[in-house]
Amino acid sequence: MLRIGLFGAGRIGRMHARNLAAHGRMELVGIYDVNPDAGAAAAAETGSVSVDSVESLLGDDTLDAVFISTSTSTHCELIERAAQAGKAVFCEKPIHVDMSRVDQCGAVLAAAGVPFQIGFNRRFDPGHNALYQAARDGQIGKLEQAVISSRDSIPPTLDFIPSSGGFFRDMVIHDFDMARFLFGEEPVEVMAMSSVLVDPRIGECGDVDSGMVVMRMESGALCHINGTRRCAYGYDQRIELFGERGMLVSANPTRTNLERYTEGGTAARDPLHYFFIERYQESYVRQLDVFVDALESGVPPSPGFDDGRRALLIADAVMESARSGRTVRVGD
Amino acid sequence: MLRIGLFGAGRIGRMHARNLAAHGRMELVGIYDVNPDAGAAAAAETGSVSVDSVESLLGDDTLDAVFISTSTSTHCELIERAAQAGKAVFCEKPIHVDMSRVDQCGAVLAAAGVPFQIGFNRRFDPGHNALYQAARDGQIGKLEQAVISSRDSIPPTLDFIPSSGGFFRDMVIHDFDMARFLFGEEPVEVMAMSSVLVDPRIGECGDVDSGMVVMRMESGALCHINGTRRCAYGYDQRIELFGERGMLVSANPTRTNLERYTEGGTAARDPLHYFFIERYQESYVRQLDVFVDALESGVPPSPGFDDGRRALLIADAVMESARSGRTVRVGD
Amino acid sequence: MLRIGLFGAGRIGRMHARNLAAHGRMELVGIYDVNPDAGAAAAAETGSVSVDSVESLLGDDTLDAVFISTSTSTHCELIERAAQAGKAVFCEKPIHVDMSRVDQCGAVLAAAGVPFQIGFNRRFDPGHNALYQAARDGQIGKLEQAVISSRDSIPPTLDFIPSSGGFFRDMVIHDFDMARFLFGEEPVEVMAMSSVLVDPRIGECGDVDSGMVVMRMESGALCHINGTRRCAYGYDQRIELFGERGMLVSANPTRTNLERYTEGGTAARDPLHYFFIERYQESYVRQLDVFVDALESGVPPSPGFDDGRRALLIADAVMESARSGRTVRVGD
Amino acid sequence: MLRIGLFGAGRIGRMHARNLAAHGRMELVGIYDVNPDAGAAAAAETGSVSVDSVESLLGDDTLDAVFISTSTSTHCELIERAAQAGKAVFCEKPIHVDMSRVDQCGAVLAAAGVPFQIGFNRRFDPGHNALYQAARDGQIGKLEQAVISSRDSIPPTLDFIPSSGGFFRDMVIHDFDMARFLFGEEPVEVMAMSSVLVDPRIGECGDVDSGMVVMRMESGALCHINGTRRCAYGYDQRIELFGERGMLVSANPTRTNLERYTEGGTAARDPLHYFFIERYQESYVRQLDVFVDALESGVPPSPGFDDGRRALLIADAVMESARSGRTVRVGD
Repeated sequence: MLRIGLFGAGRIGRMHARNLAAHGRMELVGIYDVNPDAGAAAAAETGSVSVDSVESLLGDDTLDAVFISTSTSTHCELIERAAQAGKAVFCEKPIHVDMSRVDQCGAVLAAAGVPFQIGFNRRFDPGHNALYQAARDGQIGKLEQAVISSRDSIPPTLDFIPSSGGFFRDMVIHDFDMARFLFGEEPVEVMAMSSVLVDPRIGECGDVDSGMVVMRMESGALCHINGTRRCAYGYDQRIELFGERGMLVSANPTRTNLERYTEGGTAARDPLHYFFIERYQESYVRQLDVFVDALESGVPPSPGFDDGRRALLIADAVMESARSGRTVRVGD
Repeated sequence: MLRIGLFGAGRIGRMHARNLAAHGRMELVGIYDVNPDAGAAAAAETGSVSVDSVESLLGDDTLDAVFISTSTSTHCELIERAAQAGKAVFCEKPIHVDMSRVDQCGAVLAAAGVPFQIGFNRRFDPGHNALYQAARDGQIGKLEQAVISSRDSIPPTLDFIPSSGGFFRDMVIHDFDMARFLFGEEPVEVMAMSSVLVDPRIGECGDVDSGMVVMRMESGALCHINGTRRCAYGYDQRIELFGERGMLVSANPTRTNLERYTEGGTAARDPLHYFFIERYQESYVRQLDVFVDALESGVPPSPGFDDGRRALLIADAVMESARSGRTVRVGD
Repeated sequence: MLRIGLFGAGRIGRMHARNLAAHGRMELVGIYDVNPDAGAAAAAETGSVSVDSVESLLGDDTLDAVFISTSTSTHCELIERAAQAGKAVFCEKPIHVDMSRVDQCGAVLAAAGVPFQIGFNRRFDPGHNALYQAARDGQIGKLEQAVISSRDSIPPTLDFIPSSGGFFRDMVIHDFDMARFLFGEEPVEVMAMSSVLVDPRIGECGDVDSGMVVMRMESGALCHINGTRRCAYGYDQRIELFGERGMLVSANPTRTNLERYTEGGTAARDPLHYFFIERYQESYVRQLDVFVDALESGVPPSPGFDDGRRALLIADAVMESARSGRTVRVGD
Repeated sequence: MLRIGLFGAGRIGRMHARNLAAHGRMELVGIYDVNPDAGAAAAAETGSVSVDSVESLLGDDTLDAVFISTSTSTHCELIERAAQAGKAVFCEKPIHVDMSRVDQCGAVLAAAGVPFQIGFNRRFDPGHNALYQAARDGQIGKLEQAVISSRDSIPPTLDFIPSSGGFFRDMVIHDFDMARFLFGEEPVEVMAMSSVLVDPRIGECGDVDSGMVVMRMESGALCHINGTRRCAYGYDQRIELFGERGMLVSANPTRTNLERYTEGGTAARDPLHYFFIERYQESYVRQLDVFVDALESGVPPSPGFDDGRRALLIADAVMESARSGRTVRVGD
């Protein structure tokens, strides 16, 4: 059993706590949150303990690894301290919203040589992952185009927006990673348009809530991403991958398989899941298995630090394109 | 160009008139209906002429064939007179509701030796026919079970019920033919239950409006048919054919391919077609091609008189089972 | 925490063991299997203990309830002994294949007054249950017809067949229960046909592998069930419920939401789940919640003993109809 | 009956000939093609006559209108001559590939004051049109995003490419019109990337075969179009329109409603239609009705000359963006 400490007991942190507590090969030893009540609640729910400082977890020599699901601005410091304490690290995305801070952190991590996994859980979603495998198996031949639709059901609270890093770095970053994952290559240039269509107050915070991106991959293949912060019928997340011999689609899972036929319409299903924690439930569990497997086998976890870094490079290029109206090359 | 006369210009007759007029290899020469206004209206719509007697069509030596879409009780007499006049005959289902009258008519027809086609149009529906072909191609191996769902959108007018021959002989007869067609063999025994669930006045007419049938085919395969006279979401007609290596489904065509996603539900389509003339539009045209091909090639049309007769034999057995509560062997 | 003992550590028993071990409100105290190796394996997997006699579980005064997933012939004796020991009982279906033995057992159970739940897990399948709720909410008005398709992927081993009680009592019994559950009323009469289409050796055991049933409910509504022991594309279990205002369909869940489009075909999905334990995974967990809720609240669990008994009454009537070719009234 | 002359009897021209000949309110009087054999073949098929000069049609005072489906380079001259002869004009897209030539032609047309309709038939596709109507009815509220997928099954012959005007002006122009039609507003700026992924010889002709576009509409709404010249599973043409209250999808029609379930996969349908003439069959007929209605009512047809012109303006802006890597404002 790997002994795990958890930093951050907010919405995602609490889900990690439950998954860690239920995992057969990991033991959730302690939880730290800047808000002691949040930490205590998560500990009570999972039979774990809430600790009152970062040190009390990192100083525990029996601890194998830490999970970081605190607010983004604190990620790098916690990664560095955990790495220097010799702990393996699992960190939520994004690593940080500032590229130079990411690189600084990467250097510390490399020096410490501890395993690191980034929380790009969607790679492990059953549908998305089956699509990835089918493409790798050559079922549609050479890849030529992708259309990734990424629609949250409701916007985050407005107070989150200013520190979020913005629509592309905070939300669409999952899709930038997905594009790299599916094509198995890097985007070389990007163009993007963005708008404030959902809530003008998001615009007043200096952010956008809707965006469309086109990327050219190394092979010349083209990838489109569309995103929005609000979707009336639930959490709509689809991928279609088009190749010389066909198309693969990862469609939305439905809440149940009930279909309704009435004089108002036929074959109607329920709205989609409303929250990403429900929508991606299985992927959150599967990524824990990947982390444990990596630690037990000694093979570096994947996706790792460089995956987190490259997704941010793309987000930065996209934001520059949306601002300048020009095609922007993705940095290295 | 085959020269055609049409008997009967009611709802179906008028559709036949339009299809005949638009057909490239047939010419609609004249129309007779007991109601001269109906005949005149159909003639006006199709650039044909309305005649005032059966004789004036049958006495026309240049006429090649007749279409019979009058009320069921008049079918046999018209078939016989047309046959004796040497005309090829296309007749709507059912031939008649009384088996002995059918056999009498069959003898006259056989003696005359003219081609005969029965209006089991559904055999030519694109979906049902593709299912038939796929089964014949062996795509699901040996056939084991079928489930045929047969739901009209609205009941016929009450005044039609008493002369209709009843729910099974009038409506489900299409499905009895379909079962024979799909399996390529005869049912040997049947059992059935029926109910009045839609409109008690149908029961007061001595008929039923809902029924379920199970049939055992010669090979031992089992076939279920469910039917009702009323369906809120349109004309629901599906076939599923199950075999040792899989299943084939002929699903309902949709009016358009528009899907709606709202907070009330997802992937909702429009209700189905409400009328059989829309639902089976293409099959009505295709069966004309079959008729012309048969006449031009000299090969007897299919489905023919015996197909009409055998479907009625099944309907009679089903009605006896529904009445007696016993398994009934299908006559020969 | 309710303290639970488990009898039977075969395929289903072992799944119960895992679900019980993972359940937050139950503790799996001990496991007994006639085969000590099976018991030990299940115990090892769940952190429980394997005991060497029925007594050692029933004699434990701290035990609240037992789960019975032994072979069917032993159910009644274990129910009686557990009831007499004052334990609440959860028992797999069917209670027994012999109706008189069931009634004898029911009397003992009633005298003991302990809670009893029968393992009709499908009532708790998310899709089937959502269909049930939608019907109860009146979404399709008065219920008129149901079509229940029940197809296992592969037949059981031949040595299981003779003691199984037969196709209808062993397998289709789930669907008899489902019909009662969905309509909220009893079937009054049934008719059935059965065949040996899958494997002649099943016929040599005196059993059948394919069957079709029609039932008339108290209200006059009609219900069809079709079943087979083998299905090439997986575990195919669908319900369609038809009412005066529409239709509800509980479609098959798919393994993933991946769709394939190639020159060979479009919108193709993977085959269905092959095993009922995967197919009905969530329902097995949910019925545990129902059991715990019932015990904690003091309300008798549902489905209970009478539900198990009535499903068997239907199976017996169906078998008699399949044998005699007559409509058979369901006993009381 | 409107009397119609047809210029051009190639693949599309011949389809127009058939539709005109079958139309109840139009009479196909004569056909001219530079290739007399093509003209004669179309005339023979439709019971029309092939004429040997443009003049012999335009000089016919009884002629009401002309259909132009010749090669693109000849459109403007024929439009001008027909207009000056006082004939109403229906012309295939695009009007021309050179904007200045289009404007010159537009001036002649305006001076003549004859009705003009451009062949953007997809506006009348049943699914696309139902989507348009549902959006106009406010079913999804304010429009925010669209994703238009536009995939031909096979590339045109290489000798067509150089005179085609290029991928965007020839093929994607339909989708530019669709975007204007659906949103009911103009795009203000566009960005695009294009690639040669299907056939390098298309690149050697100076053209591309794959492209992705993002457009910002006047309201700030965003519209994505993806296109390719080759699609293994048929003619894949879908629209999804996303608004504040939901999404509307115009899915691909299927050739039949047959679904296949085997151990290789489930719910598989046939490949899509391979040719646009099959795929858009109904829309080609419906646009004739629109033309006749306009001529009979005296209301100018829609889509008209300005719609053809504006789609070309967008295509030009898109091509410039693909070349320059910059956002390009759409001309006026």
